[in-house]
Amino acid sequence: MTKPVEFFFDFISPYGWFAAERIGGIARAHARAVAWRPLLLGVTVKQAMGLPALLETPLKGPYVRHDAERCAKFYGLPWRPPTPMTFSSVAALRAVIWANAQEDVDVEALVLGLYRHAWAEGGEISTPDAVADVAASISIDRALIRVGIESSGVKEGLRKSVADAVDRGIFGSPFIVVDGEPFWGADRLPMVERWLEAAW
Amino acid sequence: MTKPVEFFFDFISPYGWFAAERIGGIARAHARAVAWRPLLLGVTVKQAMGLPALLETPLKGPYVRHDAERCAKFYGLPWRPPTPMTFSSVAALRAVIWANAQEDVDVEALVLGLYRHAWAEGGEISTPDAVADVAASISIDRALIRVGIESSGVKEGLRKSVADAVDRGIFGSPFIVVDGEPFWGADRLPMVERWLEAAW
Repeated sequence: MTKPVEFFFDFISPYGWFAAERIGGIARAHARAVAWRPLLLGVTVKQAMGLPALLETPLKGPYVRHDAERCAKFYGLPWRPPTPMTFSSVAALRAVIWANAQEDVDVEALVLGLYRHAWAEGGEISTPDAVADVAASISIDRALIRVGIESSGVKEGLRKSVADAVDRGIFGSPFIVVDGEPFWGADRLPMVERWLEAAW
Repeated sequence: MTKPVEFFFDFISPYGWFAAERIGGIARAHARAVAWRPLLLGVTVKQAMGLPALLETPLKGPYVRHDAERCAKFYGLPWRPPTPMTFSSVAALRAVIWANAQEDVDVEALVLGLYRHAWAEGGEISTPDAVADVAASISIDRALIRVGIESSGVKEGLRKSVADAVDRGIFGSPFIVVDGEPFWGADRLPMVERWLEAAW
């Protein structure tokens, strides 16, 4: 059995979305599964790296707002970002932790459903109720996920997911690990594909 | 006449090198010239953005050291970085300011000669003498460029080049501007090519 492609992401990152839309297909083309790994950029960027939030960084913040919209067009994705563009992604990431532990939930569909609701529809995903609504729209049991999001095991699972990532030197969204090899950024996907064909 | 493709770079940035190796060909394929614009990341990153140097940033620093070497292999370029990887690029950037003002100097050849000496040969380009040696090896008059590097007009030219870039919101290396449209990063070159074909 080959290892799954590990895909680290935060819903506040549109670049994470651009890559999330493609990583499943890339992995399947190489007979791999995707392991969806929630990451909190508020922890990795601010606490672990000591940096300001990307959108609040002088010069880089305004550039990124422009670039993200242009990238959406480049990748052929609709673009209607949330207002404001920063929001709490904790509930949505907890939903993914919950989904990872279920046997019959399509985690990829949940991740893409939440991402699209936030960035293609300008929708709300910052509360447990909003997240459960999106989940219900893709046939996940609303009551089950709603309880799951606020269970202590899931909360601890998210903390552990983020801490484990930082321990492994993982800091951004998207961040992809293939057989231990780290790739940061949606623009590294061509390199990820080449690596899946043959490491160099 | 179409505008030149503006290429902002710092010699301390290996990603600037990866893009410098390709931007000339991309521009020529679209009947454009390249305007080589020296940038000091020490000014843009530390002063204008208030960030630590990339290689000194927790988590990101170690990742970038690994990624840069992997990128060199991905792009088919030899990799023998300078020791240490951080050095003063002021003399080399001043040489480019000088070259931009000459009628008979191949600026692209100078930029690539300096970049390759530093990053493909582990060579020294941090002093005016070292820079003049590289220039002489590609048939630039050693005495002329040696004097040029330390002329007050060239020194002021570099200060102005960096200040003008920051005023325009430009902060990284490489940073490419096509008809006013900004692109940051070597991994944006496919997007630059598409933009040169047709803005979207």
